[in-house]
Amino acid sequence: MLLVQKYGGTSVGDLERINNVAKRVLETKKPQDRVVIVVSAMSGETDKLLGYALHFDPLPDPREVDMILSSGERVTSALLAIALQTLGHKAISLSGRNAGIFTDSYHTKAHIEHIDTQRILQLLDEGQIVIVAGFQGVNEKGDVTTLGRGGSDLSAVALAGALKADLCEIYTDVEGVFTTDPRIEPNAKKIDKISYDEMLELASMGAKVLLNRSVELAKKLDVKLVTRSTFSDNPGTLITKEEDIMEQPIISGIALDKNQARVSIAEVEDRPGIAAEIFGTLAEANINVDMIVQTIGYDGKTDLDFTIPKTELELAKSVLKSFKGSFAQIEYDDNIAKVSIVGVGMKSHTGIASKVFTTFANEQINIMMISTSEIKISVLIDLQYAELAIRSMHSAFELDK
Amino acid sequence: MLLVQKYGGTSVGDLERINNVAKRVLETKKPQDRVVIVVSAMSGETDKLLGYALHFDPLPDPREVDMILSSGERVTSALLAIALQTLGHKAISLSGRNAGIFTDSYHTKAHIEHIDTQRILQLLDEGQIVIVAGFQGVNEKGDVTTLGRGGSDLSAVALAGALKADLCEIYTDVEGVFTTDPRIEPNAKKIDKISYDEMLELASMGAKVLLNRSVELAKKLDVKLVTRSTFSDNPGTLITKEEDIMEQPIISGIALDKNQARVSIAEVEDRPGIAAEIFGTLAEANINVDMIVQTIGYDGKTDLDFTIPKTELELAKSVLKSFKGSFAQIEYDDNIAKVSIVGVGMKSHTGIASKVFTTFANEQINIMMISTSEIKISVLIDLQYAELAIRSMHSAFELDK
Repeated sequence: MLLVQKYGGTSVGDLERINNVAKRVLETKKPQDRVVIVVSAMSGETDKLLGYALHFDPLPDPREVDMILSSGERVTSALLAIALQTLGHKAISLSGRNAGIFTDSYHTKAHIEHIDTQRILQLLDEGQIVIVAGFQGVNEKGDVTTLGRGGSDLSAVALAGALKADLCEIYTDVEGVFTTDPRIEPNAKKIDKISYDEMLELASMGAKVLLNRSVELAKKLDVKLVTRSTFSDNPGTLITKEEDIMEQPIISGIALDKNQARVSIAEVEDRPGIAAEIFGTLAEANINVDMIVQTIGYDGKTDLDFTIPKTELELAKSVLKSFKGSFAQIEYDDNIAKVSIVGVGMKSHTGIASKVFTTFANEQINIMMISTSEIKISVLIDLQYAELAIRSMHSAFELDK
Repeated sequence: MLLVQKYGGTSVGDLERINNVAKRVLETKKPQDRVVIVVSAMSGETDKLLGYALHFDPLPDPREVDMILSSGERVTSALLAIALQTLGHKAISLSGRNAGIFTDSYHTKAHIEHIDTQRILQLLDEGQIVIVAGFQGVNEKGDVTTLGRGGSDLSAVALAGALKADLCEIYTDVEGVFTTDPRIEPNAKKIDKISYDEMLELASMGAKVLLNRSVELAKKLDVKLVTRSTFSDNPGTLITKEEDIMEQPIISGIALDKNQARVSIAEVEDRPGIAAEIFGTLAEANINVDMIVQTIGYDGKTDLDFTIPKTELELAKSVLKSFKGSFAQIEYDDNIAKVSIVGVGMKSHTGIASKVFTTFANEQINIMMISTSEIKISVLIDLQYAELAIRSMHSAFELDK
């Protein structure tokens, strides 16, 4: 097996934990396994280094920020190499550049353009465990770049793709992906296998485990991902192609998103192009619109409801002022929650939506907006019913079984 | 002027000091000056990082140590670039590799093989202040190497040589090179100009300011060195070619070395090769012999006195046991001091030695050993007279004038 393993900041948070990672790697590695490890900076290190840069300038030169931040992962990678050597195994650290990771020049949010795997493959042939500093690459000038939030996961997935690894294991402090947030529903179960698309739809739930960027890249490169805990032996959650999952449950999980706000515009002029104008203006202001519902107009007027991230609500208010006169009334509501039920089984099963609405009706939960995709039904409700909605749906779809 | 300036760990010891360095650079830089700055890691950082590595292994893999240690200078260089940018000047940080510094592969003590100055020259042409992470380079595999103790000074001197800089300024927390240690002789004066050779002979004194490696490289590359303080505006000490110093004083300075021990072997067999055997054995044990005095033999016997570093005394004792039988008696004395009086003027002036001996006689200081070079007279004396010797010589040669 060729394995790529990624250990996050908490997993390598101090010297003792780095040593534990080294022990774990050697305990689980079979003699014939070829192992590439991607590491993050020790937890807190990136924030400390960024704080140094911000001391001088609230908007420091991104190129210099990359030079600073990239040092954290370099240190961890070499420390893990030394720890593995001390335990008796050949190991070598590689910077992003050493590992052949070439990116574009968008400093602090660079994209990987290609990976030259020659040196890694040669080192694996020599019997080395290869440890790559995550989160970083090098641009065509030879300057260090970093990949932005979740960058070490991206490094791992991209390396797994380039090396045609059998598996890419993402080690964090979480056991895997759950049917819903266990803090809300104590009966939430860890999911053994889930498809890329389901994982993407469960983003708000999965964000603590994996960013969508990494899942999308894994899907694109056909990399089997496992997310699991450094601090236990549980097998975690496998994220893979839909075809690879034999016994697909109808519903995989339920996600909750409390970070949205609703904008309701009443009696908008019902003329072609008005929606495009409103949403175009919001897009120009980099406001991300999620759910959109437009009711059929009457009397030449229509109602337009949509959701945006709560953090962009004030910006949206000021942007929408320019449309005054085009509508009768505008209302904002940030006291809402979006509950999404996700499962590829929806494609072949009918009655899912009906069951969702029945469940909500039984609990007297009013539905404000609905949006659906092939594998997801999202419902906007009053924030105070969020936990109740999650628990009742979890039980109705027997996710605790 | 093309200037290379190097700022040591104390000079960039915290964020405020980095900012002060940035201010100083901009205050002293003339519009037409082209400035390359070499920085060390923030003081304490290298020790902290090395401590991490030593946590796992008392003898960690030098390649991995280099990956870890080199991160300190990278961070400082980028922070200084940001500080300069914030003050309104174009600035860019370069890693050792970015700066084109290529070394051999002796990790943790690499030697610079060549410097490709193309990128630095281009950046200078663009009006950038170029900040280079000191202490590091890259080997032919593309792996980071470090240059050992005093490595950032070496980076600066080598860059100054490759760039044909007009001056290489080494900024530390010391005002420059003094006629002797001011803690012993309060009337010690800062030396304005001194030749490379004198500086090399004053090594034990100058070690706090500059290691011999850097002075030797400066001499070889014909780099004018200035050592001066970051924390004052005093002009420091210029270290340059003998020919460049017009008014050469006869004596430049007096050095004290308390770190030697004396070995006295009495009645050694006076046969060819015995000295070679003894010193060969010591050399094999990596014991560095400094002064050697052999008295003319009589009765087929001779006395052999020499000095070694105090730290190697125990090793020397065990090594010399193998010669038992070849001599009558061996004595060790680590209660000694070596006082050296240095000056290129000795070449053309007579009576210096005589004045040294007269001065010592007047103070009733017994001389144990003497060794001389073209520009130096070293005298071994009892440790308790060291300070008295320094002060009386300093006054006899009017170094306080």
